Amino acid sequence: MRPLVDNNRLDRFNRKALQAEEARKLILDRVKPLPSESVTLADAWGRKLGEVLVAPHPFPPFRRSGMDGYAVRAEDLTQATSASPVMLTVLESIASGEKPVFSIAKGQAARIMTGGMVPEGADAVVMLEMTVSSEAGNGQPLVRIGKSVPAGLNVAEIGCEIQEGERLLPLGQTIGPGEAALLASCGHSRVAVARRPRVAILSTGSELLEVEEQLKPAKIRNSNASMLAAMVRECGGEPLLLGKVPDDADEAQALLRRELQRCDITITSGGVSVGDYDIMVDVLADPDIELLFNKVAIRPGSPTTAAVLHDKLIVALSGNPGACFVGFHLFVAPALKAMQKEQRPALSSFQAFLGADYPKVNAYRRYIRARTDLREGSVWVIPTGDDKSSLMTTIVNADCLIEIPPLKEGLEKGRLVTAWKW
Amino acid sequence: MRPLVDNNRLDRFNRKALQAEEARKLILDRVKPLPSESVTLADAWGRKLGEVLVAPHPFPPFRRSGMDGYAVRAEDLTQATSASPVMLTVLESIASGEKPVFSIAKGQAARIMTGGMVPEGADAVVMLEMTVSSEAGNGQPLVRIGKSVPAGLNVAEIGCEIQEGERLLPLGQTIGPGEAALLASCGHSRVAVARRPRVAILSTGSELLEVEEQLKPAKIRNSNASMLAAMVRECGGEPLLLGKVPDDADEAQALLRRELQRCDITITSGGVSVGDYDIMVDVLADPDIELLFNKVAIRPGSPTTAAVLHDKLIVALSGNPGACFVGFHLFVAPALKAMQKEQRPALSSFQAFLGADYPKVNAYRRYIRARTDLREGSVWVIPTGDDKSSLMTTIVNADCLIEIPPLKEGLEKGRLVTAWKW
Repeated sequence: MRPLVDNNRLDRFNRKALQAEEARKLILDRVKPLPSESVTLADAWGRKLGEVLVAPHPFPPFRRSGMDGYAVRAEDLTQATSASPVMLTVLESIASGEKPVFSIAKGQAARIMTGGMVPEGADAVVMLEMTVSSEAGNGQPLVRIGKSVPAGLNVAEIGCEIQEGERLLPLGQTIGPGEAALLASCGHSRVAVARRPRVAILSTGSELLEVEEQLKPAKIRNSNASMLAAMVRECGGEPLLLGKVPDDADEAQALLRRELQRCDITITSGGVSVGDYDIMVDVLADPDIELLFNKVAIRPGSPTTAAVLHDKLIVALSGNPGACFVGFHLFVAPALKAMQKEQRPALSSFQAFLGADYPKVNAYRRYIRARTDLREGSVWVIPTGDDKSSLMTTIVNADCLIEIPPLKEGLEKGRLVTAWKW
Repeated sequence: MRPLVDNNRLDRFNRKALQAEEARKLILDRVKPLPSESVTLADAWGRKLGEVLVAPHPFPPFRRSGMDGYAVRAEDLTQATSASPVMLTVLESIASGEKPVFSIAKGQAARIMTGGMVPEGADAVVMLEMTVSSEAGNGQPLVRIGKSVPAGLNVAEIGCEIQEGERLLPLGQTIGPGEAALLASCGHSRVAVARRPRVAILSTGSELLEVEEQLKPAKIRNSNASMLAAMVRECGGEPLLLGKVPDDADEAQALLRRELQRCDITITSGGVSVGDYDIMVDVLADPDIELLFNKVAIRPGSPTTAAVLHDKLIVALSGNPGACFVGFHLFVAPALKAMQKEQRPALSSFQAFLGADYPKVNAYRRYIRARTDLREGSVWVIPTGDDKSSLMTTIVNADCLIEIPPLKEGLEKGRLVTAWKW
């Protein structure tokens, strides 16, 4: 029989449990924002803005027509009705992208296209479908309009979208379609984005097979590494899959030190609990490693541990898939986002109705994998299944975590609860 | 003065407006799912599953311990209390990944680790913290337990997560963290995913400058192409930015035919309206092109047009940024998702409370850019600003579209409305 570790060993059992917020703060306090790199706008999708940009000019930069139609002076049409339409002289046809040649004076109009520059003097654009074009005897184009229009109709004033010098986007904002459009119109064909955090992923567990291996008795394939890699990519990071932590603590520490050179943060799964073979506990006992915390008052994932070695964060997550998933969202995702300068890196919370009875009594705050369901104006959060931390299938389709506070009795379906989304 | 196109021209004005659902159906009917390609699981993130996979074995594949502790027979502990604990003989210590040597008989237990294989005979695992280990005089390890436990406690039965032969994931499901974990545990180190749709993006508009150009009078920089490229990437596609449609219809048609070879779908922005320079109207008049529709009963984006050339879809969106954005979500995104075998490619709707008065009267169904706000269990949708189709800044932070039905009067804040999310 193998020798047993003393299961009363103080350093494993008498850990001081922090609240999740405290633990997260300890991590965020040690995050260093990554340097920015310049990428083309086409490559900036999904990246986080690494510089403060201000508008180099107002937008639109000229009075822009919002319609195909006729640029007019609204006051010329005050008396216009369908029975008694007003006839205006058409001076020119202004294509989009062309500077008008003429100013519009009393009784005059200009044909104009959507996006075209509204000529001086005109203060409204009448849509084409509300007009009838004709010609005077001398060939002079005319337009007949049978309706009055308010001044300003279909005219976007200079700077009505963006004023010169206005900050375009918050630092750390993820660049999606709207952001890309905004950056393009301000001439940012290249943009500084935060470098992607390089995230070393290590696994522990003698039961783990590689994904491509045949199943063997008592073994399972390593699923956490693939899950974590996907989560890292969701957060804009670059996963480095480094395989398994060596069983020997010295070797594992050597590996950690070596890989620290090429990564910004290290995450591990498993080996942080009170079991006999929980290698990460020994690995993190390295005297050069500064322990931030080794217990959090949450379920699942209470043995989640964080440390710093040579100024770089190491977050040791639980090995149970559910605990690993929750720990990543609560502690690693905020760190990755903060590295990329996101201004509010922690998960954001909302209030929702609990979609199923939750009978369990909790000593610790519990985070349940759930999906959001919007019904008739109400937000419900439905647990994706049994919330046992070992279950992996409940992660599929989860889009939030229900927070169940420490309670002496269970919660009934329909109760308002706090949930956290990513 | 430039010659004017007859603004009463029938083919431009008398278009037949389809409802959005009809128009979308015409597009989806012409979508061909793309062939699948095999990628490593690490590269499968964000891709859509291209094959039906079933579980090759149950999961967990053995009775798995959910705790560090002792594997016991629950019936041995029925009388156990803290005052009168039960002492069991510990046969072995079962590490995760090791097959147990012994079966557990009456009065016996085995030390076991989280994830370990529960030995024959045992039907529960008592967590380590609830036990006291000791030794008999002869050195035989013992464990003292002062509490009864139900059978099944902390034991995950074979197949309790996934049964053998069960379908793992729906076809077309996006591979995220949970999916990656599931695929890994079933040994799928490579996975077939739908090939990314290649999407040609063309722009029209004589007012358009390239993003890197200096601003000139009456001109703006092309922002739609960058916006569309980001939207294509959000949908898992690969954008091909092809610049501007030539002003000459023949040249434009030739370009379209040439590029059709290397793309799966073409999207254009601008030039579909009733203006004098709306080139796409002429381009799509090519007799080889089958028109699906050229008007939809929506605002913004009513002139949105779809056609098929040599079996490939062409969707011509409005040039106004807001209209282009809405048209993409309603018509292009569903096509891209269907190409990647997503089972429900259209946007999904939900009911929410309108976050601001909407005074406008609409002849057509209107889609307003908005963001979702969850407050105290209620879902609100807040317009991101004025819903003029020309505005681009209202796209930033929009995460849904509020649908305003054709109405004779405006809607008040707090009314329940339908919204569409992506």
